[in-house]
Amino acid sequence: MADEKPHCKVVLATNIAKSLLEEVQDGLAKIGRKPLLVGFLSSTDPAARVYAEWTGKTANENGFAFELREIDREELEDALLDANNDAAVDGIIVYYPIFGNRQDQYLQQIVSIDKDVEGLSHRYIFNMYQNIRFLDHANTKKSILPCTPLAVIKILEYLRIYNTILPYGNRLHGRTVTVINRSEVVGRPLAALLANDGACVYSVDINDVQQFTRGEGLRKRRHEVHEKPGWTLENCLPISDVVISGVPGDKYKVPANLLRDGAVCINFSSDRNFSPDVKEKASIYVPAIGKVTIVVLLRNLLRIVQNKIDAAAEASRENVSEAVQTSES
Amino acid sequence: MADEKPHCKVVLATNIAKSLLEEVQDGLAKIGRKPLLVGFLSSTDPAARVYAEWTGKTANENGFAFELREIDREELEDALLDANNDAAVDGIIVYYPIFGNRQDQYLQQIVSIDKDVEGLSHRYIFNMYQNIRFLDHANTKKSILPCTPLAVIKILEYLRIYNTILPYGNRLHGRTVTVINRSEVVGRPLAALLANDGACVYSVDINDVQQFTRGEGLRKRRHEVHEKPGWTLENCLPISDVVISGVPGDKYKVPANLLRDGAVCINFSSDRNFSPDVKEKASIYVPAIGKVTIVVLLRNLLRIVQNKIDAAAEASRENVSEAVQTSES
Repeated sequence: MADEKPHCKVVLATNIAKSLLEEVQDGLAKIGRKPLLVGFLSSTDPAARVYAEWTGKTANENGFAFELREIDREELEDALLDANNDAAVDGIIVYYPIFGNRQDQYLQQIVSIDKDVEGLSHRYIFNMYQNIRFLDHANTKKSILPCTPLAVIKILEYLRIYNTILPYGNRLHGRTVTVINRSEVVGRPLAALLANDGACVYSVDINDVQQFTRGEGLRKRRHEVHEKPGWTLENCLPISDVVISGVPGDKYKVPANLLRDGAVCINFSSDRNFSPDVKEKASIYVPAIGKVTIVVLLRNLLRIVQNKIDAAAEASRENVSEAVQTSES
Repeated sequence: MADEKPHCKVVLATNIAKSLLEEVQDGLAKIGRKPLLVGFLSSTDPAARVYAEWTGKTANENGFAFELREIDREELEDALLDANNDAAVDGIIVYYPIFGNRQDQYLQQIVSIDKDVEGLSHRYIFNMYQNIRFLDHANTKKSILPCTPLAVIKILEYLRIYNTILPYGNRLHGRTVTVINRSEVVGRPLAALLANDGACVYSVDINDVQQFTRGEGLRKRRHEVHEKPGWTLENCLPISDVVISGVPGDKYKVPANLLRDGAVCINFSSDRNFSPDVKEKASIYVPAIGKVTIVVLLRNLLRIVQNKIDAAAEASRENVSEAVQTSES
């Protein structure tokens, strides 16, 4: 029996982005106006400028207004406060790194929660780690998730790794996922999100391996973290259905020989963390995710605008109801 | 943090059957006539009679005609040959066991391949093991698959274990499945079908464990079988995403402590091979499959009738074309 070539489906971010964009455009049509996203560029990092230009292009092509404000970094805080107070501004994105130290985290908390399309406000991050999905008790306003981790989740939904026959919130039950990188920006929130959705996640960084899980039968309401002393990729990769890697730099490669046959492999580093031999074993390979991240940003903006419209409608209903009560009394 | 109850979705055959029946009814509407299924009962096994009555009920309720012929077992061969030659009969099902020995396999080959809704004809079985999916070179007439293994596959499709983002024929790539039972009727064909669709299958019976697989990257066109000396369920279950068990008798229980958390568990024994504690760990549990098997039988009947109609249409086109050529020459 002659051998065939290995079967690996390479899925490009463009195609995933396209399917998400349709959803975003449907939502935009319902709103019936052009939301304004303002980008703040104070970074000297050329990658930040590229990201800014890419946001602008995608926004403009898809019915959003985008305005780039280049601001001296010492004046950024005031500029952000102005934008917070400007009713014409729907969403704010700041291109990091700026100071490249803790001052950047301070600046992230300056952006109004009602305009934070990146999902970096403490309350959003808190909700994400705590597996709290809504901002209100009536469960109508969804909390905003950080763009890059959410992009990975949207990719896993597109790839049918989320099983829609399972109840919402548990759709990764039975999946084992390795996330290589535990940065506060992507790796750790991503591991938490996936575990909150039911996966058993191995979070790997240069020092150690941690397991994020809701426990047997998903008995916990949210994930817990357990150290895995002595564990390395040699333990994680052979048992993982999904491998997600985001190690910066072009030196790092995930060892393909350790992958489980038929694994789903996703790279979120701006470099390629998988060498071409990943296709010998993976069933699905996603080489880059940037284009999905931008669409997720627009999706967050849309959600924020919808929340604002809903809140205004509710307030006006309450006013009417109060007026009725006043006239009746 | 308080513990919740374990999350296990119990999926009943009735619901899966319902969704398949819709598909069957759509097909039936296109045909525009009532196909006739004839059942032959020569078995003294009470389970055979129950199965026959159940077939009749499901067939009648869903727009098929069903006729039960109770025949002395010594006269069955002639009765089958008569039915083969009777144009009014679209499909034939024989309720086994009859002699309970190799004579039953002889009888299976008596039923005309064009009326064999159970998919037991040698050519169908050969195609199944060889991963040949069509009866013709133009790939228009699908080969018939045996009912019980096909029912399990339809269940796995319903449960989204087949990943539709992967190409047809490879949709189980990356899935590890344990099948407990290696009978010629269900266990072995099922293991072969799943492996041909891309899964890594451990086929377990009382004597040994065999691995059915198309190899790394699905390089083989069809599955190969490898002995796994010294392996037991202790090796298979902890690495299996899906566990399918069909051990006869009410004594046997799959050891739940060995299951992978979030496993999908399916019982095809007429007894329960999983004890209630399966729900502590499984993400999905299907306790019985009988109702799906009957619908798959009707689906096979429909396919056979469609193949017949297509063949007749093709023959008439060829006749017209010959007539045109004759008049032109």
